[in-house]
Amino acid sequence: MNSFGRIFRVNVFGESHGASVGVNIDGVPAGIPLTQADFLPDLERRKAGAKGTTPRKEDDLPFLKSGVFNDHTTGAPVTILFENNNTRSTDYEKLRQFPRPGHADFVATKKFGGFEDYRGGGHFSGRLTLNLVAAGVIAKKILGPGIEVKARLKEVGGFEDPEKGLEAAIAAKDSVGGIVECVVDGLPIGLGEPFFDSVESNIAHAVFSIPAIKGVEFGAGFAAAKMKGLEHNDAIIDADGHTATNNAGGIVGGITNGNQLVVRVAVKPTSSTPKDQQTLNISSGNVETFSVKGRHDLCIALRVPVVLEAVVAMVLADFMLLEQRRPRTWGQ
Amino acid sequence: MNSFGRIFRVNVFGESHGASVGVNIDGVPAGIPLTQADFLPDLERRKAGAKGTTPRKEDDLPFLKSGVFNDHTTGAPVTILFENNNTRSTDYEKLRQFPRPGHADFVATKKFGGFEDYRGGGHFSGRLTLNLVAAGVIAKKILGPGIEVKARLKEVGGFEDPEKGLEAAIAAKDSVGGIVECVVDGLPIGLGEPFFDSVESNIAHAVFSIPAIKGVEFGAGFAAAKMKGLEHNDAIIDADGHTATNNAGGIVGGITNGNQLVVRVAVKPTSSTPKDQQTLNISSGNVETFSVKGRHDLCIALRVPVVLEAVVAMVLADFMLLEQRRPRTWGQ
Amino acid sequence: MNSFGRIFRVNVFGESHGASVGVNIDGVPAGIPLTQADFLPDLERRKAGAKGTTPRKEDDLPFLKSGVFNDHTTGAPVTILFENNNTRSTDYEKLRQFPRPGHADFVATKKFGGFEDYRGGGHFSGRLTLNLVAAGVIAKKILGPGIEVKARLKEVGGFEDPEKGLEAAIAAKDSVGGIVECVVDGLPIGLGEPFFDSVESNIAHAVFSIPAIKGVEFGAGFAAAKMKGLEHNDAIIDADGHTATNNAGGIVGGITNGNQLVVRVAVKPTSSTPKDQQTLNISSGNVETFSVKGRHDLCIALRVPVVLEAVVAMVLADFMLLEQRRPRTWGQ
Amino acid sequence: MNSFGRIFRVNVFGESHGASVGVNIDGVPAGIPLTQADFLPDLERRKAGAKGTTPRKEDDLPFLKSGVFNDHTTGAPVTILFENNNTRSTDYEKLRQFPRPGHADFVATKKFGGFEDYRGGGHFSGRLTLNLVAAGVIAKKILGPGIEVKARLKEVGGFEDPEKGLEAAIAAKDSVGGIVECVVDGLPIGLGEPFFDSVESNIAHAVFSIPAIKGVEFGAGFAAAKMKGLEHNDAIIDADGHTATNNAGGIVGGITNGNQLVVRVAVKPTSSTPKDQQTLNISSGNVETFSVKGRHDLCIALRVPVVLEAVVAMVLADFMLLEQRRPRTWGQ
Repeated sequence: MNSFGRIFRVNVFGESHGASVGVNIDGVPAGIPLTQADFLPDLERRKAGAKGTTPRKEDDLPFLKSGVFNDHTTGAPVTILFENNNTRSTDYEKLRQFPRPGHADFVATKKFGGFEDYRGGGHFSGRLTLNLVAAGVIAKKILGPGIEVKARLKEVGGFEDPEKGLEAAIAAKDSVGGIVECVVDGLPIGLGEPFFDSVESNIAHAVFSIPAIKGVEFGAGFAAAKMKGLEHNDAIIDADGHTATNNAGGIVGGITNGNQLVVRVAVKPTSSTPKDQQTLNISSGNVETFSVKGRHDLCIALRVPVVLEAVVAMVLADFMLLEQRRPRTWGQ
Repeated sequence: MNSFGRIFRVNVFGESHGASVGVNIDGVPAGIPLTQADFLPDLERRKAGAKGTTPRKEDDLPFLKSGVFNDHTTGAPVTILFENNNTRSTDYEKLRQFPRPGHADFVATKKFGGFEDYRGGGHFSGRLTLNLVAAGVIAKKILGPGIEVKARLKEVGGFEDPEKGLEAAIAAKDSVGGIVECVVDGLPIGLGEPFFDSVESNIAHAVFSIPAIKGVEFGAGFAAAKMKGLEHNDAIIDADGHTATNNAGGIVGGITNGNQLVVRVAVKPTSSTPKDQQTLNISSGNVETFSVKGRHDLCIALRVPVVLEAVVAMVLADFMLLEQRRPRTWGQ
Repeated sequence: MNSFGRIFRVNVFGESHGASVGVNIDGVPAGIPLTQADFLPDLERRKAGAKGTTPRKEDDLPFLKSGVFNDHTTGAPVTILFENNNTRSTDYEKLRQFPRPGHADFVATKKFGGFEDYRGGGHFSGRLTLNLVAAGVIAKKILGPGIEVKARLKEVGGFEDPEKGLEAAIAAKDSVGGIVECVVDGLPIGLGEPFFDSVESNIAHAVFSIPAIKGVEFGAGFAAAKMKGLEHNDAIIDADGHTATNNAGGIVGGITNGNQLVVRVAVKPTSSTPKDQQTLNISSGNVETFSVKGRHDLCIALRVPVVLEAVVAMVLADFMLLEQRRPRTWGQ
Repeated sequence: MNSFGRIFRVNVFGESHGASVGVNIDGVPAGIPLTQADFLPDLERRKAGAKGTTPRKEDDLPFLKSGVFNDHTTGAPVTILFENNNTRSTDYEKLRQFPRPGHADFVATKKFGGFEDYRGGGHFSGRLTLNLVAAGVIAKKILGPGIEVKARLKEVGGFEDPEKGLEAAIAAKDSVGGIVECVVDGLPIGLGEPFFDSVESNIAHAVFSIPAIKGVEFGAGFAAAKMKGLEHNDAIIDADGHTATNNAGGIVGGITNGNQLVVRVAVKPTSSTPKDQQTLNISSGNVETFSVKGRHDLCIALRVPVVLEAVVAMVLADFMLLEQRRPRTWGQ
């Protein structure tokens, strides 16, 4: 459903053009310094404005509605609300007739019987990633300064230089996909829970909540499928578990091994391409030419790094809180 | 932890060389015909014996310990037990000294303080996939004959012909990785739960419980990252939501769209390569040459298809039970 | 934690004197007519103002922040926010020094290290029952007109006539406890999940989230402990499962049996009695005389009926949604 | 469903006359000494044989099928199996026709469509309390020697001397109910999670999984409903939170306050009274006289103390594991 995490439990809500989007987080320890200002840098990174991103502008101010007192968390659930102000819903009326290829319009109507808030993608909108970024800010505080989560755009449209990929897309007047990589330094050995809650399982689970993600891999990832054992195995070289190579991406048997965690995601091209497309006209029953007007990103991958950081931090904060609480070995 | 699923809830337990491995499944509807014989075909597919698989032989007979009466499920939890008979634990004593590269030996000892059952990988062993296959047999019955889950080996060691990849590995006296693809036909539109329980999220979560998986992708997957929007978007061509292409792999906005579901996983080379390797000698504190003796698969990907089918079926059965007769829209 | 329910999942948040209290509900089916006005009758029943209730007045207007579109639920999470306006926090500063007997002040400080919002009981305040009442309004809509949930004050201070019990308390210038009973008519046979999610288990669980509840019983309840078998057993008298008596309170083996569900709760006297009390002065370390000023109810049981209805409705709505979704018997 | 607990997660399975009953426990810390012998004293306390208990005898030997190695827990799930040997299922064939008053026969058939294992109550049988007792043994080890959980029969059939109550029942040739009280000494301050996972909520939830329980109360319980505030409030008398009285039963605001935890349950008379009863004959559709033959307890309350201890210990162990080393307040 709309919640994730076992101890650090994130509940997201809201619609793109409704009253608000927001996030409620249970399990936040008491005593973490937290003010509105703490959220702004990451929200800014996510924000629209750069080349290739949507012209829709929102203040994106996070209002702390619960769980914070005297600028510190209280141990009660933290609720963060973002008001929606800058909405132009009339852009979207047409979509009821033309379900946009690649969007949730068609499946949402089938699933929710036409009662869904279809404006701007409603609950399926990328605007809900605001909630993830906000949760990520708190998660990063839980991880502390010793654990650094860092994501970057690794590839756009097949180009290692994202600028080039973006230029090519602009030239082609089409949207374009990309690859984003996140690395985490400073993790302890032993995060992850057999059998079903491996670090890979939980990160993959969370990552696919980001709209437009179609693949995830750890360490060597898909390249490992072409490797031989001797080539892929990472030799352990000291008593702290450091390895000579890192094809495992810091995770063995689903458990962190103390090396750098490496995860990459494939981001599909923004579905709302400026190009004309073919799709069903629900009224006529015919396939017709259709063009998305609205305001959209050309390359949604540009905005993914800070969101990917956030969900990876969420998962790791949850594991850290779980691990700190449990006397993993008895009497120690 | 060791459970997965919301309605169809699978709990796995056991160790490779302990008394048994087994699975307890809560939420199985009453009235499903079920006997020991129903499990044998899929267990046989998973079994050792083919070229490139381990010489360890087990009967792998599933004992139904609860939840079945008069050859039908009762609605109470179904427990299936596999006894471990053919164990040669002395093979593994050495591993306490030499944590095998790519295995969970090192992290398991760190996490469980030396109390873990280290024999044959213990609770981390691939032998626990027996439990997944057994759960998958019941999940497939829940999906019914109209929904077909079919996985196959797509690539070994970079060769599209698995036989060639395997021959190359045997020639190199090394283990080798591969790619396995699973497709599902006959799914209804509308499975998957926003925001965090998309079909992709839950399948990815479950898939990474299979040992040796390092990547997962849906539809075009990582190839989508190099595409432009017009190329990637699947045009909707009829009122049932069929699309001209299937780059989405049957999932849009995290929800099934009625087209074929396509998921692929990257399987790393078996960590237990026959080749000599470097690893830490815990006693001496030095990196030394080490060779794994034991009995192991050369290409674990060969045994993955039936396991991948099982976890995909588990996830889909859970969604189906959640969705079925669901008053998704009120009063209808 | 701060969430309850499996399908109809209620998350509460907020503090008595913080920015707001609110509730986020996941799993609400799409298409339920819902406006602010729908909440007002039950909120009014809970409201302060009657004899024996606190003089604090709040508008208690529920703001629908998500999950509602065109006055119908959308299938996305519903968030309801109540702003806190009429707070007089200075009343509570003294409490930091004198932890009130019977209140959570002392344990909250120990648990949350002094970071808790202590004003007005903070997250432990009875003000959070607003959230329960709001969730109950939606739950009752899910149950529909055929299932009626009705609670009433059954006893105050040992008097069957609540007015007499209240008069006695006013005369004694002390607070007083009471008993509230809730009955439900129209339930189908078969709600409740063995082994741990019996109807009794889940109602009892939810009921103890209401502040001041110290006991719960079903049907004959504690009186059953004094009965003999023939006296207690409810003879089944027709094929619909109707029984001649109803000592079981409509629940057998943890499952509804189609008869009237009967649950009673014991409500302790309001901890904030107008009388002087002894308690620890944390600064001096001595036990000293202390009197609670603030604004409080004399008999909190007066406000419990609508809250008890709400939590019982929440639990039953969750069971109904669970039951409707699951093909309890296969192929039917 | 059939699982309970958040960290210490108990899954029960089995049927009275099926192959076995058993319990699978996830979240058990590694390194706890555990052998079959550890279970025998509590299993013996639960066992049949005393006056007023069923003549059915079972060895009740617990087989450790997973999660234990070298007589210590490994951190992997612990599975305990009890084989059913001494079953006389023919006793129960008649019950298909006459659903026993007070038993789950009728609702089970309605819920599971006739596929339920009806022999000896099947999955609803009191025999499944074996699983609770086994889980309780491990839970008590987690609580350690400093926390003592002790239950005793407080009342039988209204007599404070249980022997007298039992004699009266034997004389009346009828079954009889009772009250069982459990006290816990040595608990730390601060167990329990607002808003929905109070200690009272979780204990009440677990307690109602014990067959025949119809009420639960903490501290003064239902007597509190007749009290005034000054009489009920427990004055805090020292900095450790000790109180002069203990009407709260060791729980304030849902959180343990460091005083003795006191919980009482009402146990209804055994439904299977030796007396003739009226019930529906499903074949004829008439209400007819019926007598239960089988082998049954006269006063099931006699066997409840060790089971009540077990479920209270389960809940508290779960809270302790959740709390332990918890960074409840940040940076401390």
